[in-house]
Amino acid sequence: MSATDESLISGRKHTEIPRAVTAGAAETQAAEAAEVRKTDRWLLKRVSSFLGDPPVEFAVRGGARVRAASAPVARVTFASRALLLSILADPWVRIGDAYSDGSVTVEGDLVELLEVVYRASAAADKPSWLRRAADLAHRPHVNTLAGSRDNIHRHYDIGNDFYALWLGSTMAYTCAYYPTPAATLDEAQTAKMHHVCRKVRLRSGESVVEAGCGWGTLALHMARHYGVRVRAFNISHEQVAYARARAAREGLAGQVEYVEDDYRNISGHYDAFISVGMLEHVGVKNYPTLGSLARRCLGSNGRGLIHSIGRNQPARLQPWIEKRIFPGAHPPALSEMAQIFEPSDLSVLDVENLRLHYAQTLRHWLALYESAAERVRAMFDEKFVRMWRLYLAGSIAGFSTGTLQLFQVVFATADNNDLPWTRAHLYT
Amino acid sequence: MSATDESLISGRKHTEIPRAVTAGAAETQAAEAAEVRKTDRWLLKRVSSFLGDPPVEFAVRGGARVRAASAPVARVTFASRALLLSILADPWVRIGDAYSDGSVTVEGDLVELLEVVYRASAAADKPSWLRRAADLAHRPHVNTLAGSRDNIHRHYDIGNDFYALWLGSTMAYTCAYYPTPAATLDEAQTAKMHHVCRKVRLRSGESVVEAGCGWGTLALHMARHYGVRVRAFNISHEQVAYARARAAREGLAGQVEYVEDDYRNISGHYDAFISVGMLEHVGVKNYPTLGSLARRCLGSNGRGLIHSIGRNQPARLQPWIEKRIFPGAHPPALSEMAQIFEPSDLSVLDVENLRLHYAQTLRHWLALYESAAERVRAMFDEKFVRMWRLYLAGSIAGFSTGTLQLFQVVFATADNNDLPWTRAHLYT
Repeated sequence: MSATDESLISGRKHTEIPRAVTAGAAETQAAEAAEVRKTDRWLLKRVSSFLGDPPVEFAVRGGARVRAASAPVARVTFASRALLLSILADPWVRIGDAYSDGSVTVEGDLVELLEVVYRASAAADKPSWLRRAADLAHRPHVNTLAGSRDNIHRHYDIGNDFYALWLGSTMAYTCAYYPTPAATLDEAQTAKMHHVCRKVRLRSGESVVEAGCGWGTLALHMARHYGVRVRAFNISHEQVAYARARAAREGLAGQVEYVEDDYRNISGHYDAFISVGMLEHVGVKNYPTLGSLARRCLGSNGRGLIHSIGRNQPARLQPWIEKRIFPGAHPPALSEMAQIFEPSDLSVLDVENLRLHYAQTLRHWLALYESAAERVRAMFDEKFVRMWRLYLAGSIAGFSTGTLQLFQVVFATADNNDLPWTRAHLYT
Repeated sequence: MSATDESLISGRKHTEIPRAVTAGAAETQAAEAAEVRKTDRWLLKRVSSFLGDPPVEFAVRGGARVRAASAPVARVTFASRALLLSILADPWVRIGDAYSDGSVTVEGDLVELLEVVYRASAAADKPSWLRRAADLAHRPHVNTLAGSRDNIHRHYDIGNDFYALWLGSTMAYTCAYYPTPAATLDEAQTAKMHHVCRKVRLRSGESVVEAGCGWGTLALHMARHYGVRVRAFNISHEQVAYARARAAREGLAGQVEYVEDDYRNISGHYDAFISVGMLEHVGVKNYPTLGSLARRCLGSNGRGLIHSIGRNQPARLQPWIEKRIFPGAHPPALSEMAQIFEPSDLSVLDVENLRLHYAQTLRHWLALYESAAERVRAMFDEKFVRMWRLYLAGSIAGFSTGTLQLFQVVFATADNNDLPWTRAHLYT
């Protein structure tokens, strides 16, 4: 059975068998080849079915193919049957890894492919045991003080030069706000910062605490355009170093203090509490702590804003993303975000869902990333290039198909009546 | 011990003892009077403490008084010690009843009094056993199909003529929207209806289902100004009769159908699902049903709006209001409202908290109500006049102090990308 076994493992090898064979052997081999293709087709159909049968053609390299019911938007080719089997055993992580190492290849537009896969997966009600199996197979990283530091280090400290290649001149690594879809990335990032500042109505002379500040862009923007003092917390060493140098260069070091520390160690009193794109790394069980911290920081006219990737329903982050890209991350549903505000009697004043803006932001990032692919390859390797391409393309698809949301939540202390009468001031 | 017992029951009676007494008896009686005042003061202090020691003077009619630590905004007088004791035994309901029947009187502004009481109560962290005691003492009315019909009948069917006295010309019995605080009630109710229609971007020729439609005002507004067809559901017989007559009178009966039925019996497909001021009567355990019903009604470009009184934290409605005014009602926290949307994978697009607008709406209602008090008295009786005055004044205080919220939530089916790019269109 060794020949058959080998063909079971790799359909491709089978096609490389030399032609010089006897008629009987040729017949046997033809029958075997037919059997192999049949088995491969069965496996490909399982993959397609797991993904909700999207309009995608699936193939084994040099072997079997299965066509979609409707016109396919792309072809996905698996290097071998062994790969197919390993993917079926653990699809949540293996398919992403296989794309990264090149053993899964895609003909067609990667974003479009992922969009049809996400839509089909959402439409195909997965049995709950399958979700539970995924949850059991992949335990997310924990967000203890030490765990958070490690998780953040693994994403944000991989090199400021790398991020500078594709984040645009603002170095803002969060959803931008496009007043019109035609806005450029830099325009939209600047508009986002103004949108945030207007939502919490920053006034000159006020003080702001920022929980998670990336490369420091928003803190500088607030200080420069709204005349506020900012204390900005971040546990990414690389980001804090970059932000401090930038503040000094731009003459704002007197107004903005970057603190390399965990948000849990924030102390003092402030007029506003702002956190843009950190909540994803906090972990739901720490939400009440975050809320009570915000409550404690704020006086009776206190207000705040939390901006975070979210979901329509509580669900774990896609395991490949959690494992390879964002260890410990979790995009919350609104019922989960409520656990920040409700225990501390904070009033939610405004929630805006900006998911289409994040899809657009990510399209701009991916375009810049692709145009810098050679330099990324030189910094890291081809596997890294493909891995981050998949992450960016998958994120576009997540936001454009409604698998992911972006919630901007404005809140205030319960007894704060110093509130704008309407939201018209945001649009004039 | 009979004399002492009697004085324990009523401090006031004690002051009516005739002056013609012997010197010895006079001394005894003076000592007894001092003892009575001391006991009454102790009881008044318990009431004050239960309310978080607000800046209010508490008194027994013709007897003891306790002054507040800071300048009092009002004086609350209890008719007797017996009343004080019964209030302390069940403060949640008895104090409202006693105000209604005139055995508790208020000198000073009722709204201002209730505002300081609400603020003080919120600041004084009630022990959780006290909350549990209140929950156990007062079980809310249930919202089964029959229960809902009874609950709604008891509030909304008490007479269209009564509501017409103080709701303004729109007969809209929900929070208005004040583009500026100076807007009149009618202007603000009309602005609210436009705000709702713009939020769901109604287009001519579309169909709308409305769950709970009051006296039919919004349905007519949508038909007239946005050219949509509306099916509006309501289980209040009086309201539906009124709404149908109005639609006929205004020549809109062909565009608007009022259905006297429970929202749970909504069927058909619509472009938009709208519910303004019904959720308070749905009951949290029915929220997933409401959400799946909305999901089922809507096509792939479906969107909806739910407008409801809410809270910062899950908590039962004040028991007196639930018992005497709104049987079965519950203002949800956002985590509770999420149970409408999350199980049905509906995307929350926008949440606006309009609590200051509801305080303003209620101020306008209370002013109209007070100017029509004589007619209300003629329709019902003095007790009813005081009961509804307390309800309206208490509601102002609830919204102005942040004890109550008003959430307007816009939602859409998860895969609906036909969304406005920003919310600027609401303000131009």
